[in-house]
Amino acid sequence: MKAILISVGDELLIGQTVNTNASFISEKLTENGIIVVKHIVVGDNEDIMLKSFDEAIKKSDLVVVTGGLGPTHDDVTRKAVVKFFNTELILNSDVLADIQDMFSRRGREVTSTNKDQAFVPKNATVIRNSRGTAPGIWIEENKKIFVVMPGVPYEMKEMMESTVLPNLREKLSTKSKTTVTTNLLTTGIPESILYERLGNLDELLEGASLAFLPNQFGVKLRLTIKSKSLEEASDKLLHIEQKIRGIVGRFIYGKDTDTLESVVGKLLNDRGLRIAVAESCTGGLISARLTNISGSSSYFERAFITYSNGAKVEHLNIDEDLIQKYGAVSLEVARLMADGVKAVSGTDIGLSATGIMGPTGATPDKPVGLVFIGICDEKICTAREFKFGDDRILNKDRTSQAALEMLRRNLLGIPYEE
Amino acid sequence: MKAILISVGDELLIGQTVNTNASFISEKLTENGIIVVKHIVVGDNEDIMLKSFDEAIKKSDLVVVTGGLGPTHDDVTRKAVVKFFNTELILNSDVLADIQDMFSRRGREVTSTNKDQAFVPKNATVIRNSRGTAPGIWIEENKKIFVVMPGVPYEMKEMMESTVLPNLREKLSTKSKTTVTTNLLTTGIPESILYERLGNLDELLEGASLAFLPNQFGVKLRLTIKSKSLEEASDKLLHIEQKIRGIVGRFIYGKDTDTLESVVGKLLNDRGLRIAVAESCTGGLISARLTNISGSSSYFERAFITYSNGAKVEHLNIDEDLIQKYGAVSLEVARLMADGVKAVSGTDIGLSATGIMGPTGATPDKPVGLVFIGICDEKICTAREFKFGDDRILNKDRTSQAALEMLRRNLLGIPYEE
Repeated sequence: MKAILISVGDELLIGQTVNTNASFISEKLTENGIIVVKHIVVGDNEDIMLKSFDEAIKKSDLVVVTGGLGPTHDDVTRKAVVKFFNTELILNSDVLADIQDMFSRRGREVTSTNKDQAFVPKNATVIRNSRGTAPGIWIEENKKIFVVMPGVPYEMKEMMESTVLPNLREKLSTKSKTTVTTNLLTTGIPESILYERLGNLDELLEGASLAFLPNQFGVKLRLTIKSKSLEEASDKLLHIEQKIRGIVGRFIYGKDTDTLESVVGKLLNDRGLRIAVAESCTGGLISARLTNISGSSSYFERAFITYSNGAKVEHLNIDEDLIQKYGAVSLEVARLMADGVKAVSGTDIGLSATGIMGPTGATPDKPVGLVFIGICDEKICTAREFKFGDDRILNKDRTSQAALEMLRRNLLGIPYEE
Repeated sequence: MKAILISVGDELLIGQTVNTNASFISEKLTENGIIVVKHIVVGDNEDIMLKSFDEAIKKSDLVVVTGGLGPTHDDVTRKAVVKFFNTELILNSDVLADIQDMFSRRGREVTSTNKDQAFVPKNATVIRNSRGTAPGIWIEENKKIFVVMPGVPYEMKEMMESTVLPNLREKLSTKSKTTVTTNLLTTGIPESILYERLGNLDELLEGASLAFLPNQFGVKLRLTIKSKSLEEASDKLLHIEQKIRGIVGRFIYGKDTDTLESVVGKLLNDRGLRIAVAESCTGGLISARLTNISGSSSYFERAFITYSNGAKVEHLNIDEDLIQKYGAVSLEVARLMADGVKAVSGTDIGLSATGIMGPTGATPDKPVGLVFIGICDEKICTAREFKFGDDRILNKDRTSQAALEMLRRNLLGIPYEE
């Protein structure tokens, strides 16, 4: 099955919005063995949209359109779809009920503009939208599939996962070659060292393909295998994965949709351990990530964002003289913060971070990017030094990642050395 | 001048890489008055590439191709360009010198694969690459401009800034229309209500165009005006912006690259006010956002992430009986948290959030999405109720946004009613 994606929106053509929808949909379709042959991005313009629909439906089996389904005047996709399929709009009572329900739950009146969104093309099956008001549209004609979803990423993603992908999997012939992919998530090792450590890739991969996808949180290793059967592909994938783990396993914190916070959350939960956090430079980001996990209240006790020295002294019981002696950004203070927050909170583990995120705040011996992370449990109480970059937001991301990775290695007894 | 962008690369079609090149180039061309009418993304396939070149050059005045210029077997763009223009490759000695220079600076030998990159199409002007080995290509034929650059973002960006944009500005007739855009950032009002509140758009806009771009943080209003001169366009834009502000100004927290945290940060800084935060459901996100701003230590004092009731009692001095009576997620406790954190920290302002982020944790009378935000300053001490959705991460985003917006309205004395 070949697919063409059409993304609609002037905001894409003027460069205001990055087209993450196209990459998300491409990734999901590829995982399901569908070959994406083209992306097309057009503005909120009916004529150009109609020409693109025509080109796409001629050259592919599946057309996925996103964007332009909102309630306002500049959203013309639905109108273009009606014209393209020479059909009409009819009221869908399920969608109307969804919209009314969503508004009443938020204690708001439904506007006539939103009610209008319950009208869908007559030849379409509706894709319910649990996160917004615009329904998606699924049309099948002449053995071609035409899917339309809103451009709002979290609405589109939910529709893809709950409806579009399950429907497509049902349609897909079992005879086609299966592509199986797994993503091994590493952190704490640079791309180039990871690459060198893995050695001869041809020997290692035995025909599979491997991509290195770095960002500020680590390097994702994307392993892809094509095979005649799902079983054969999965077996081979597992074999290669185990070879990779044999070499760089200690850096792999998870797979696919795992996050470092979900991985450490599970470890803490399984062991019945509770944690408290003392953050300075990260300003709450470590805690915000830990609490992104549903059920985190069973292991996340509390946190202190001790931005000022006063807060460090008052709440973490750190001796002010020691802060003066070593500086708030120091190995010693990081360790004292972790120890202090553990003691004050009465938890099993204390985790801390202090550093200089930039662009200001550097001193001659403490440059921007210098970070100390502390961790204390029943047995050990230690801190480590890290050197990150110049960008404040990236430095916060990197520091939160390094702190959660120190926690993971502490829980699993993995030494920190490369 | 109309432009079509062609991005080449299998990594885009399998969703491994997000097409940030297209948005960067679009933004830069738009700033220079060039209208981007389409983006096309194709794989590393010569035939499909040739068809796209043909389509693009027929429908635009400027074609910008990125990607597929690397030294390896799967980079076929240069070959396709040679075929498309029916020309041949010739050695460019400047490019060869650039490549040799780059390798010698890194203490490496030039490989024959890299030397091969010094061959460029005979009809092209070379765009020097100061950050990599593949040169860019500039071809003019039949009053059309055809530009090819590498897909590596930092190489492409440097070529755009140093060569492509200056050349284009020279080509552009001064008679062409200038496009000016401004983004008004709103929060706390749904797209449909904003739309209705603005009334008759034709009357309001006087020929300008307005797009509504919603996400979980609010609705961005993108206002675009085309005019003969930059001055005329800017004047008209300001006039329309003022009309919009006259109607929905209280919901507009900033413009363009502003963030709510940068806006409240500036207000706090200007007034010399200090803030402390008590977070429950947001788990540190409000503080993480406030501290994303460089220099935030001058107004952000400290924060407590009181996930457990014990932490609320111990650190915010909330009467445990009141937590039992009203529940930890209540208007009363939100107010007490804001009051408590202000008192304990000795700041001018206390801000708090408590709620049920989901998917678990709901009770019969307290559903997922229920949130209370408290704010206390010298004069008032109050809390408000909010109802958000089902998704934990989006609820955290929405709660942090609503808390910062309550802070903004408090600082500016804007009433909260719609």
